[in-house]
Amino acid sequence: MIETMNNNNNTATIEYEYPLLERVRTYLRLEHIVHALQPNTPVSQQNFTRYFSALFSVLDLCERSDVRTDVQKDLERRKAQLKIWAEHPDVNQQQLQETMQRVGDALQAIQPMSRVGSNLKQDRLLSAIRQRFAMPGGTCNFDVPQLHFWLHQPQEVRDADTNRWWSELDVLVNGLLLELELMRGQARFQTASAPNGLLQESTEPLSLLRIRVAADLPAYPVISGHKQRFSIRFLRYEPVNGKASYDQNVEFELALCP
Amino acid sequence: MIETMNNNNNTATIEYEYPLLERVRTYLRLEHIVHALQPNTPVSQQNFTRYFSALFSVLDLCERSDVRTDVQKDLERRKAQLKIWAEHPDVNQQQLQETMQRVGDALQAIQPMSRVGSNLKQDRLLSAIRQRFAMPGGTCNFDVPQLHFWLHQPQEVRDADTNRWWSELDVLVNGLLLELELMRGQARFQTASAPNGLLQESTEPLSLLRIRVAADLPAYPVISGHKQRFSIRFLRYEPVNGKASYDQNVEFELALCP
Repeated sequence: MIETMNNNNNTATIEYEYPLLERVRTYLRLEHIVHALQPNTPVSQQNFTRYFSALFSVLDLCERSDVRTDVQKDLERRKAQLKIWAEHPDVNQQQLQETMQRVGDALQAIQPMSRVGSNLKQDRLLSAIRQRFAMPGGTCNFDVPQLHFWLHQPQEVRDADTNRWWSELDVLVNGLLLELELMRGQARFQTASAPNGLLQESTEPLSLLRIRVAADLPAYPVISGHKQRFSIRFLRYEPVNGKASYDQNVEFELALCP
Repeated sequence: MIETMNNNNNTATIEYEYPLLERVRTYLRLEHIVHALQPNTPVSQQNFTRYFSALFSVLDLCERSDVRTDVQKDLERRKAQLKIWAEHPDVNQQQLQETMQRVGDALQAIQPMSRVGSNLKQDRLLSAIRQRFAMPGGTCNFDVPQLHFWLHQPQEVRDADTNRWWSELDVLVNGLLLELELMRGQARFQTASAPNGLLQESTEPLSLLRIRVAADLPAYPVISGHKQRFSIRFLRYEPVNGKASYDQNVEFELALCP
């Protein structure tokens, strides 16, 4: 069902991804969230919900699983793999050396890290907000007056705090984004088709599926799977009458990242 | 401790409020949230977290207590009170008539409403997002692919949906904002002082406290109370070493809204 494609396709597409390993699931969630925390977005009355929602979600995810160790191990595997490739005569050595350098730098930065977020736990402002954050409307000025106070301080005060919070996360985030970049780089998109809106495949062990669908297809893919088996079922987008299977053949693009 | 003030004070202040009744607590929470839902803010990849967080918080609050009935009863009380005032010769009759008209319109709009959000429960997209929303990073494209699809539709598609969702809420929100406006209009700010950072008072039954504090005071008020008794304690803003009482006299402004 999956064929190599010519990659000069310029039509608008929507890209979906599906993690086939639990730790990749966590990586993708973190990647999805951390954009809101980059220090180039000043936090204000208007966007603080998005900011703190992102920050507490990152802390939750890092408390649930040892992301730091996972990323470190994954990057060590990449490093070993790159060393093997370096022996191969056909490989672009300059590009390989650059990647090895980036992986080496990321590993060096990650190794001395303590558990992510442990310093943020001692931050009284964050603790007070976090405690209330899950309550609907729980960040009202009477619930967390110190947040209201903070939001009325000069922007520099907030920037100093958000930069400090970010500095607890950025090494891990950089390592994680590098690992995802390398993972995605492992496979090219190929054309694939889902007869009657369904594709089921058994494969070699995979980490990540990537799917590109024409933006004008009135359906979205619902994916399930684990390591060596996955299914992609297209569902018609019908907000009111609920989901309905999409029974037509769907041509799309698929990348299988090991 | 509380004296009438001359109100030509132009220094920068931070305003805090404290509800002394449970239903006012809910009103303030809703007011705090609903700004994010006004149809003049298009929902996009960048701000959808804030938007859905607000929408689900409103639904949560409206499921917990019968806000519609509370607002209706409160506005009926306002209407009766305004009728009594209308008999008073010193009252500005034009302004009073305008207010009576607004209260009458709000009541007429609220009366036929069914329970807030009951139609939104049938929305499949909202249900799918809401189910995942509390999970950290739970709105990733692999968790809710239909959200990812929706976020890639033309802005008009999203605007049509958000306008429809808003139309389920706007009558209630308008009534609630009117009630809060009238409640706040019941009392003027007066100067008050908190010796050693603490003010405790017994009063007539109140709905809402409002406090204005000089923006350059390095402290924020922590308020507690219920109906006829309240205390305002100022705490030093110290994010790292935690809260510490602020032992100096604080001059501020206070409005006691019955």
